[in-house]
Amino acid sequence: MTEAMQQITLAARPVGAPKDSDFALLDAPLPTPKDGEVLVRVHYMSLDPYMRGRMDDAKSYAAPVPIGGVMEAGGVGEVIASKSDAFKVGDMTFGMFGWATHGCLPAKEMRKLDARLPVTTALGVLGMPGFTGWYGLMELGRPKEGETLVVAAATGPVGSMVGQMAKARGLRTIAIAGGADKCKLATEKFGFDAAIDHRAHDDASSLRRALAEVAPKGIDIYFENVGGKVFEAVLPLMNTFGRIPVCGMIAGYNAGALGGNEQSTVPDRLPMLWRSILVKQMSINGFIISNHFDLYPAFLNEVAPLVATGKIEVLEDIAEGLENAPRAFMGLLEGRNVGKQIVKLI
Amino acid sequence: MTEAMQQITLAARPVGAPKDSDFALLDAPLPTPKDGEVLVRVHYMSLDPYMRGRMDDAKSYAAPVPIGGVMEAGGVGEVIASKSDAFKVGDMTFGMFGWATHGCLPAKEMRKLDARLPVTTALGVLGMPGFTGWYGLMELGRPKEGETLVVAAATGPVGSMVGQMAKARGLRTIAIAGGADKCKLATEKFGFDAAIDHRAHDDASSLRRALAEVAPKGIDIYFENVGGKVFEAVLPLMNTFGRIPVCGMIAGYNAGALGGNEQSTVPDRLPMLWRSILVKQMSINGFIISNHFDLYPAFLNEVAPLVATGKIEVLEDIAEGLENAPRAFMGLLEGRNVGKQIVKLI
Repeated sequence: MTEAMQQITLAARPVGAPKDSDFALLDAPLPTPKDGEVLVRVHYMSLDPYMRGRMDDAKSYAAPVPIGGVMEAGGVGEVIASKSDAFKVGDMTFGMFGWATHGCLPAKEMRKLDARLPVTTALGVLGMPGFTGWYGLMELGRPKEGETLVVAAATGPVGSMVGQMAKARGLRTIAIAGGADKCKLATEKFGFDAAIDHRAHDDASSLRRALAEVAPKGIDIYFENVGGKVFEAVLPLMNTFGRIPVCGMIAGYNAGALGGNEQSTVPDRLPMLWRSILVKQMSINGFIISNHFDLYPAFLNEVAPLVATGKIEVLEDIAEGLENAPRAFMGLLEGRNVGKQIVKLI
Repeated sequence: MTEAMQQITLAARPVGAPKDSDFALLDAPLPTPKDGEVLVRVHYMSLDPYMRGRMDDAKSYAAPVPIGGVMEAGGVGEVIASKSDAFKVGDMTFGMFGWATHGCLPAKEMRKLDARLPVTTALGVLGMPGFTGWYGLMELGRPKEGETLVVAAATGPVGSMVGQMAKARGLRTIAIAGGADKCKLATEKFGFDAAIDHRAHDDASSLRRALAEVAPKGIDIYFENVGGKVFEAVLPLMNTFGRIPVCGMIAGYNAGALGGNEQSTVPDRLPMLWRSILVKQMSINGFIISNHFDLYPAFLNEVAPLVATGKIEVLEDIAEGLENAPRAFMGLLEGRNVGKQIVKLI
């Protein structure tokens, strides 16, 4: 084949927030699938906060993208050539195709999509983010009826899954989101009982007072996906036997290797946390969702029907064109997206 | 009865480390048991770090001792009068008799002792401290053969239980203790594979280097019972999927309500911890052993025979006389005791 593909590579390691010059848009020859491989034209690619971590050359839970390497991403697309019995031309599939218009992967690294659902759901509500929310809540949060849950980035694909699943189990659900519009979405679209605009609060103390008002019985589960100010606001409100699943910290991603955090300037917080863990008998569990894919089928079994019937609401923010992926990604890290950030490629 | 008893009350709330004038030794009339109650002459009372917390008027997991109130403690002794069918005069029993030569409690709040074992074991290795070590290790530490465990205060009744149970399950066990003599006890009496004298290390970095040498495969379980410098030394050495049961922090007890910690003066440690929890997918669980007494019979079933046959070693440090309890307690908080601190009362 002589058709070309386009891809975005990491041109430089960002210092703090990524900028245009950290990315390069390049043409590349379209690969030819080898035995067992499948060539896919990507229709939609996913943008997720974890990608910021891959841009740093720091020890983390996954290897960094090398300079000049294609940025990593999941995508959904259509098979255009197949050297595998598992896929035929025209099949719709999910795979880690990267920031690219096309991808060529072994068939066993791809997953055929359920044709009854919109393909983009495989990137958000039924993909890694939705599964992250479901796993963290159900396995580590252990929700019980009548309890109170707080989650930040509540209109995103992780937070909205957490909130909706918890609400369905009879918990009081409190959203933290950036801006009045997102707060409105949180309560009206995703059914949160209350929503707090973190931008309306300059510091953790102010945010804590607002939380205390809407969580009069304290907080039993704080689903941690942002870190920083929200965590500091939440900690003193946690109830005995509170659970904190920790799945990611978007607030720290731009701050470099060790996740520095502009909010944490008071030296006595670590012992305060440590004492809280003891006195409140809390359970704090970090998890990386890629180590739990054994439960992905159980997740799909439970949640796909809820999405199909509209019992789980979906919100997507779709940018157009691979060339706009870097800007969409920068916006994601700043919370400018509304819902799951996706890039439409064709 | 006109016989008198002696008791020690809280005369003043300590500021930092307790001193003599924070305690008062008083005579009191011997109580007469009411229906269902039992009067006990206490032979041995227990001194434990948690008692320091009870001396502060701060929100914690148990109410503070009021000024003028009798200091709280478990004790073992002999029934000298009984208005309960459950106990007869001469029975040996455990109860929360306080810092006192005698105690009068409802029979249902006491536990008859196994006559085949020395009575003091009910205060240490088979009492609350031993149970704390067993529960935290087995339920929250989830030890697996070949893993590496670190515990501080390793010659104390919690740490020595943790180390011996872990060693029996095929873990590499590393003791942290204060002074060369305790290090020798840790390896020779309790079978730890290595022991590190924390007093030989001025800061967490130095302690960390020493730990790294004896834990070449990293640390899978850190049983947290002291806090402070040890935790900071351990954290960067924790392996992926590491577990940290948190049962108490003697290092912080003297520092006041919120557990201030003289070692934590660097502002970026909280985000570092938070990021470690995520990246290493750690599980951190605080627990207060009094909420888990449903498992106490299982603990006794497993561990009492091991103590009886000498498979679990016991080390006790016995002070003489109620009047010496305050000094023994101050010594305990400074680590001057060697083994489980007990006070002999008759």
